Amino acid sequence: MISSLQNSRIKWARALINQKQERKKSRAFIIEGVRLVEEALSSGWCPNFLFYSGQLSVRGQALVAACIQAGYEVEEVAPRIMDKIAAVETSQGILAVLPERQPVLPNEMDFAIIGDSIRDPGNLGALLRSAAAAGVQAVFLTPGSADPFSPKVLRAGMGAHFKLPILTQLWPDIQMQCKSFPTPLQLFLAEAQKGLPYWQADLRVPLALIIGGEAEGADPAIQKATDKSLQIPMPGGFESLNAAVAAGVLIFEVVRQRSS
Amino acid sequence: MISSLQNSRIKWARALINQKQERKKSRAFIIEGVRLVEEALSSGWCPNFLFYSGQLSVRGQALVAACIQAGYEVEEVAPRIMDKIAAVETSQGILAVLPERQPVLPNEMDFAIIGDSIRDPGNLGALLRSAAAAGVQAVFLTPGSADPFSPKVLRAGMGAHFKLPILTQLWPDIQMQCKSFPTPLQLFLAEAQKGLPYWQADLRVPLALIIGGEAEGADPAIQKATDKSLQIPMPGGFESLNAAVAAGVLIFEVVRQRSS
Repeated sequence: MISSLQNSRIKWARALINQKQERKKSRAFIIEGVRLVEEALSSGWCPNFLFYSGQLSVRGQALVAACIQAGYEVEEVAPRIMDKIAAVETSQGILAVLPERQPVLPNEMDFAIIGDSIRDPGNLGALLRSAAAAGVQAVFLTPGSADPFSPKVLRAGMGAHFKLPILTQLWPDIQMQCKSFPTPLQLFLAEAQKGLPYWQADLRVPLALIIGGEAEGADPAIQKATDKSLQIPMPGGFESLNAAVAAGVLIFEVVRQRSS
Repeated sequence: MISSLQNSRIKWARALINQKQERKKSRAFIIEGVRLVEEALSSGWCPNFLFYSGQLSVRGQALVAACIQAGYEVEEVAPRIMDKIAAVETSQGILAVLPERQPVLPNEMDFAIIGDSIRDPGNLGALLRSAAAAGVQAVFLTPGSADPFSPKVLRAGMGAHFKLPILTQLWPDIQMQCKSFPTPLQLFLAEAQKGLPYWQADLRVPLALIIGGEAEGADPAIQKATDKSLQIPMPGGFESLNAAVAAGVLIFEVVRQRSS
């Protein structure tokens, strides 16, 4: 049982949890909690190794047993070490180091999301969760967005990361990508107070929805490239919605229009 | 200038920020930041008093000047005291103590939200923000929900608290209230995996949308009282959405149906 914070794997795990740079350098990230680890495994992601500790639930113990059976490297750590390295206040007693995967885009696409400067990790995670639930085929993020593989985004994503290609790229690359499919994607920009009421737009065409961050409107380069602006009418006379909520409203309008 | 944490008003402000019990006892709460204070004043809420400190922006200084002009009690505090009492990491240098108001319901209603055990403050705040934006007439919360007047909910609400009656009540009282309007409200329950696809329901009737928390489904008593269950179809095959996102999707479907 590992009982020292000086253990090299423990040190590495802490760095992966706390530092975006380390995640980038190592091309790896950490997931915590029984549910996320289950989601990763059932989606075919193979951990580098797993840590567990005595505070595990019965469900968690079964998960560890399954990991050992599957041949993954599993190490027990002292509960106080687990609590120290965990990003959450009360650790469920399990975490896994996962290698990043090169995201693979389908050859043809009809539904993508572009997140521009979504800085709040909770919002970004909720957006990814909505995207996975709606069957979105890829999420592109501009570099001003939160790191999608940070612990908070992973937690709020509830496993979306294992179902969705997520690509952080510069805007010109995102734009080129969206326009290079056999049927190029129409770019629809969500705006706070201008554009077509979203339900009046035909969202059955192949499209990418662009969702801007909370702080400011979309980048001028993005505005210029936009094919159509959409707004969510607000009869209550409020300025704007939470970015994850706005994204959800538009994402599920696409689902609605394509279902009927 | 106040420069001691022992000052009685400072002590009270800290208690109001950190303790739900103190908010309840004093029937008061605290808002922080220039934008929220502006929203409160422009919505006709009168602060008991305001604190400001040297780190105020120009816009914040104008706000303080306007408060003095309006006859509100305003006191300067040392920046290090402001940083100590603030709930946010970097204080904008202004906070106000506001008295709670008795929420007043309109005599007739056609659009209410019921939040059942929405425990996450960020989600509750985002839900209130969506409700205010959509012109919802009241939000009812069951006692298992987060305190709507805690700093995090106020921050995420972005001023919704000043536009919406928000009532925390026991379920039987909420139910009775909803059914006692001249045209009783239909109760629509958002469910994760069952019920009518939400766009197939007629949401133009006077209604209350019931949104459950993240952790568990709605209380059996609520399920029993429900007139109709709605689901948000998830073609991506995911288990559920973030509670604030699910609320937003349904709230704006009501707006959509009533606009067309």
